Amino acid sequence: MTLGIIGLGLIGGSMAIDLKRRGFAGTVLGVESDPVNATAAHKMGLCDELVSFEDCVLKSDMVVIAVPVGSAVRMLPRVLDIFSEEGNEGKIVIDTCSTKSQIVRVAHYHRLRGRFVATHPMAGTEYSGPWAAMPNLFDGRACIFANAEESDPDALEKVELLYDVLNMRPIYMNADNHDVHTAYVSHISHVTSFALALTVLDKEKDEKHIFDLASGGFSSTVRLAKSSSDMWVPILTQNRDNVLRVIDTYLEKMKEFRDAIAVRDESKIEDLIHQANRIKKIIR
Amino acid sequence: MTLGIIGLGLIGGSMAIDLKRRGFAGTVLGVESDPVNATAAHKMGLCDELVSFEDCVLKSDMVVIAVPVGSAVRMLPRVLDIFSEEGNEGKIVIDTCSTKSQIVRVAHYHRLRGRFVATHPMAGTEYSGPWAAMPNLFDGRACIFANAEESDPDALEKVELLYDVLNMRPIYMNADNHDVHTAYVSHISHVTSFALALTVLDKEKDEKHIFDLASGGFSSTVRLAKSSSDMWVPILTQNRDNVLRVIDTYLEKMKEFRDAIAVRDESKIEDLIHQANRIKKIIR
Repeated sequence: MTLGIIGLGLIGGSMAIDLKRRGFAGTVLGVESDPVNATAAHKMGLCDELVSFEDCVLKSDMVVIAVPVGSAVRMLPRVLDIFSEEGNEGKIVIDTCSTKSQIVRVAHYHRLRGRFVATHPMAGTEYSGPWAAMPNLFDGRACIFANAEESDPDALEKVELLYDVLNMRPIYMNADNHDVHTAYVSHISHVTSFALALTVLDKEKDEKHIFDLASGGFSSTVRLAKSSSDMWVPILTQNRDNVLRVIDTYLEKMKEFRDAIAVRDESKIEDLIHQANRIKKIIR
Repeated sequence: MTLGIIGLGLIGGSMAIDLKRRGFAGTVLGVESDPVNATAAHKMGLCDELVSFEDCVLKSDMVVIAVPVGSAVRMLPRVLDIFSEEGNEGKIVIDTCSTKSQIVRVAHYHRLRGRFVATHPMAGTEYSGPWAAMPNLFDGRACIFANAEESDPDALEKVELLYDVLNMRPIYMNADNHDVHTAYVSHISHVTSFALALTVLDKEKDEKHIFDLASGGFSSTVRLAKSSSDMWVPILTQNRDNVLRVIDTYLEKMKEFRDAIAVRDESKIEDLIHQANRIKKIIR
């Protein structure tokens, strides 16, 4: 099939690599609005051809929207509108966004809603752009299908095959629940990393000390603070209510810790650490 | 030489492996108060012989105190007292603790202060005990020498050789400065990880969701929350003032982030993320 990928960054580019070499896509058409990224992506072989947005939608059997969630929300109805043109009604479009409530909402009343499959492949690194694209990025990770019952069965089946080729575990979930759970598990860890980086950069005026003293522990905890604002500003604002709720719980836990340290209450600190240690049972 | 290692856990055990196989130590005498860990450490070959604390100090040329900082502070003066006995005055003792002000203080007025070299090899994992010991743990990492000018030149030189054999970069620092900087760079990231684990375990009652949705990002951010209370309760209480100061800055940064999200101030969120991104220049 001809696969159109809009946005040849970390996610779109990595999909292109594996879907092409694993035979899912015969041809990959790429859309990339940033000219430097577009040239690089094409030279790297992430797509067979760079095309315009309209050409991509018209010439592809399946379209992958792999741009930040703010742009994706504006783009999806335009894709479905083009699908409405004669001879295009059998096409399929998917998105790969990290928040799902809003994108599902903008498509809800579209006549061709069934041709859209809302997905969130939960894989990534803190890097972005075509240079961050890599093979095997998705292997063994989870992919959320949001509101799958609103998609046509044949469209859903083809998209399930796509993620099966990427070796992802499918998980089916309501879009609103998705946004609650990803706020808890994914979005908060980005916020805590950003705040950690801000703190260390603020307190430690001499960057040499950070460089010298950064242990593996600090590096892994602060790693997500390298993530791009293009991606995270729309996620944090679109998922505002859920993110705020989890930040507030986080602030309470942090204050509990702070107060125990302030009065040197060793048994309370020990108790909090033991509770936190329970994460060992869940995360390897 | 005969090397005595008190505490055959992650740090002591890993030192034992590399110092023995790289020829720095001919014989390793081990002291381990936990009987299960002691048997395991001996069977694994982390030491040639398990001995009592007194025997270890009397029979070794150099003694490494690799126990949590609370115990280390109580142990160091006893080691120096045994050194005072005839024929033992040329021995050397080092500690490996993550906080340095207090341990340097307890030795300050001892007649044999010069035989003590205060060090902090900045390497580790979130695991502990003899099973966590591994070869090459220290390679390429930094080792802090605290108040090195208070150690006898010959003792310092031998300990510099020890860390050179472990392939560590020496950094010389005043003990109080060490505790300020490690609070900024190392201790805070443990506290933020503990708080993150507590938050997620609190908000997400269904552990299956955490397991399913945990991406690589979450796992790396929460990794330090697996760290043991035996190690971290004494660090956080001994370095209380510095840790509190950095927690307070952290809470301010987090609130700044929270408030920007609350009012959906996209340019403020973007600005904060850009500031946080500066960590890229320092941490690979």
